[in-house]
Amino acid sequence: MLGDMLSADVLAEMNDYVREELIDLLAPEQVAELASELDTDDAVAIIEDMEEDDQQAVLEAMEPEDRAAIEDALSYPEESAGRLMQREYVAVPEHVTVGDVIDRLREDVDLATDFWEIFVVDPLHRPVGTCQLSWILRTPRDIAVSDVMKREQTLIPVDMDQEEVALRFQKYALISAAVVDKAGRLVGMITVDDVVHIIQEEAGEDILRLSGAGDGDINEPIAMTIRTRLSWLTVNLGTAMLAASVVGIFEGAIAKFALLAVLMPIVSGMGGNAGTQTLAVTVRAIATNQLTASNTLRMIFREFRIAAVNGLSLGVLIGTGTALIFGNPLLGVVIASAMLINNLVAGLAGILVPVTLDRLDVDPAVSSAVFVTTLTDIMGFFSFLGLAVLSGLTAMG
Amino acid sequence: MLGDMLSADVLAEMNDYVREELIDLLAPEQVAELASELDTDDAVAIIEDMEEDDQQAVLEAMEPEDRAAIEDALSYPEESAGRLMQREYVAVPEHVTVGDVIDRLREDVDLATDFWEIFVVDPLHRPVGTCQLSWILRTPRDIAVSDVMKREQTLIPVDMDQEEVALRFQKYALISAAVVDKAGRLVGMITVDDVVHIIQEEAGEDILRLSGAGDGDINEPIAMTIRTRLSWLTVNLGTAMLAASVVGIFEGAIAKFALLAVLMPIVSGMGGNAGTQTLAVTVRAIATNQLTASNTLRMIFREFRIAAVNGLSLGVLIGTGTALIFGNPLLGVVIASAMLINNLVAGLAGILVPVTLDRLDVDPAVSSAVFVTTLTDIMGFFSFLGLAVLSGLTAMG
Repeated sequence: MLGDMLSADVLAEMNDYVREELIDLLAPEQVAELASELDTDDAVAIIEDMEEDDQQAVLEAMEPEDRAAIEDALSYPEESAGRLMQREYVAVPEHVTVGDVIDRLREDVDLATDFWEIFVVDPLHRPVGTCQLSWILRTPRDIAVSDVMKREQTLIPVDMDQEEVALRFQKYALISAAVVDKAGRLVGMITVDDVVHIIQEEAGEDILRLSGAGDGDINEPIAMTIRTRLSWLTVNLGTAMLAASVVGIFEGAIAKFALLAVLMPIVSGMGGNAGTQTLAVTVRAIATNQLTASNTLRMIFREFRIAAVNGLSLGVLIGTGTALIFGNPLLGVVIASAMLINNLVAGLAGILVPVTLDRLDVDPAVSSAVFVTTLTDIMGFFSFLGLAVLSGLTAMG
Repeated sequence: MLGDMLSADVLAEMNDYVREELIDLLAPEQVAELASELDTDDAVAIIEDMEEDDQQAVLEAMEPEDRAAIEDALSYPEESAGRLMQREYVAVPEHVTVGDVIDRLREDVDLATDFWEIFVVDPLHRPVGTCQLSWILRTPRDIAVSDVMKREQTLIPVDMDQEEVALRFQKYALISAAVVDKAGRLVGMITVDDVVHIIQEEAGEDILRLSGAGDGDINEPIAMTIRTRLSWLTVNLGTAMLAASVVGIFEGAIAKFALLAVLMPIVSGMGGNAGTQTLAVTVRAIATNQLTASNTLRMIFREFRIAAVNGLSLGVLIGTGTALIFGNPLLGVVIASAMLINNLVAGLAGILVPVTLDRLDVDPAVSSAVFVTTLTDIMGFFSFLGLAVLSGLTAMG
C-alpha cells in the first residue's frame, strides 16, 4: 500500500536516511517499479545506497533496458559524473534542419522527462555543438542545426568528480552539459538541478567537517552521530593533554605566581580565534578553486600581514590593560609579546596547514582545525609562560 | 581601450572587487554600453555596487528603456528577488496555440538572451501556468498552450529575500521561475544560473561568519579584512577576559595546587569543541530550513543525549587518566564531573543559542560562536575549579 502512495519523484527528493527506512519496507518489485519511472540519475541515487542483496533483487525485477542503464551507472565510481548523469538526452546529426528536429521531437515518445538543450553529434557520436531549445524555437524550419548550434561547449568527462562537475556548472553558468567517455563519445547528460544539491552540500559540509561533526545530518541515527563526534573529540582530548603538558613544564612558576594561570587562557584562546578565521577563509578559497599555485605565496604573505597588525593591536590592548589593572608593566609587556607571537603562529598555521594538506590530497576541512588549534594552544601557553619565566616575573611574584 | 577589450559577459562573471577596480577605470559611457548588452539582472549586479555619483552618470548615458529597467530593479531592496530577476521573459495569453507561440518567437528579435520556459498569463498579466520549451517543441502546432502548460508553478514574490529564493529553487529543482508583484502580476523571471552563486555563497558563508572572518573574499582590500577580523577578535578578547576573571576567583586555590592550572584548559577546551560541533550542525540545519518549529524540541533532546553520552565517555577517559598519572583519585572524579557538566552546557548552548537568535531574527551564524565558547570557557573553569575547592582538593594539595 505504501508503494502505491509514494510517487517516484517524492522518493527521489527525500532525505537519504528517511528514504532508506522507507525502502526497507517495500518489496523489490515495488522499488523496481518506482525506479523505472525515474530518469537514470534519480533511479541510481535510490538504488546505490541499498545493500548488495537488495540491490540485486531490485535490478532483477526491472525491465532489461532500465536495468542495463542502471548497472552501467553503478559501474562508475561513487560521486563521479557517470553516477550523476542521465542516459536520456536528445542528440541529432549535423546535417538535419530545425524542422527535422522539431518533427523528431514530436514523434519520439520515449524522451528524457526534462531537457533544455539538444546535442549535435558527428557520425562517431562525438558532440560537435549544442543548441538551447530557445534557439531551435526561434529559428525557421529550413535552417540547418549546424548553423544554429554553438560549437564551444563544456564537456564533462564521465569519470570527473562531482565536486569538479559542480564547479564547472558554476563557472560557466550551465543549465545542462554533455557527458563524454574516454573516446569523446556522448554517453549522457547532467542537468543543473542535480548539481544544485552538490553545490549546497559541498559548500555547507566544510563547516561541519572543520568542527568534526561528520556530515551533520539531523536525521542520521543517533548512535552514528555519537560515534562520529566522539571519535573527533577523543583526538581533541589527546591534543588538549599535549597542550596541558606544556603548562605542566611551568607548574612551579604558576605555584609562585598564580596570576599567570589566570591570564594564560587569554593568549591561547585568542590565537585559536585568529587561527580559525584564517583557516575558514583558506578552506573556502581552496574549495572554490580561488587559491591557486600562482597566488598561494601572495595569500600567505597577506595572512602574515593581517596577523601582524591584529597581533600588535590586540597585544597593545591586553598589554596596557594588564599593566594598569595589576600595576605590573613587565607583565603587560610579556602578555603583549606572547599575544603577537601567537597571532603570527595562528595566521601562518591557518593558511599553511590547509594548503599543505590540500597538496597532500587530504581534505583540508577535515583535519586542519585540530592541527591549528593544537599549535595555537601550545604556542600560546609556551610563549606566555616562557617569557614570564625568562623576564624574571616569577622570581618577583 | 580597456572598454573595447572587455566583453560584457566577462565583466558580469568577475569577482566583485576586481570588477570594481576595472569599472573605476572606465568612462560612464563605456560602462553604460557594456551594461546595455546584458540582461537586467547582470547589469544591476554591475551598477548596484558603484558610488551614487558614478551610478547616476552611467544611468544617464543609457538608453531610456534600459535605464528604466535598471532604475526599477534598484528600487527593490538589496538581495531581494527584484534585484535578482531579469525583465526579459516570454509571456503569452491562454488562448494561443503552440504554433502561434513558435511563430511569435521566430518573429520577436528583442527576447531574453536565455530562457527555458514560457509563462502563460491571464488578461491582467497574472501567471496561470508555465510551459517548458521542450513541451512546446514536442506538441503539434494546433494544440492550445493551455493544454500543454502545467498549472502548478512556484511563483516568487518580488520582495522575497534571495536566500529564500535559492531555497525554493533547490526544493522544487527549478530551472527558472516567474516573479510576481503584490497584485500577483508577472514582473520578471529568475533563472537558476543566477541562483547557483547564491546557493554557493550562502552555504559557504556560514563557516566564515561563525569564525568572524567577514565574507572571506581573498580579493578584498587588506585594510577592510583587518578591520572585520580585528573587531571580531576584540569582542573575543572581552569574553576571554571575562572567562579569565572566573579563573581569577580561584587564584588562591591555584597558588596552593598549581596542577589545577595545568588541567583546567582541557575541560574548557573540550567544552568548546563539543559546543562547536552542535553549533555547526544547528546553523546548517537552520540555513537549510531543516530545523522547524515541529522538530526543534526533538533536536534539543537529541543534542542533550549526545552531550550526555560524549560527556560521560570523555569524563571517564580523562578522569581515569588523571587519577592514574597523578595518583589522585579525587582529582580524577573532579575532572570527570566537570567534563560531563561542561559537555552538557556545550550541547545545550550549541543548539539553544542559535535557535534563540534565529527566533529573534538575528543571523545565528554571526553571533552564536562567541556566546557558546564564552559559556563553555566560563563553565569549564568554574565547574572544574569550583568542584576542586568544594571537594577539599586544594586543602590537601
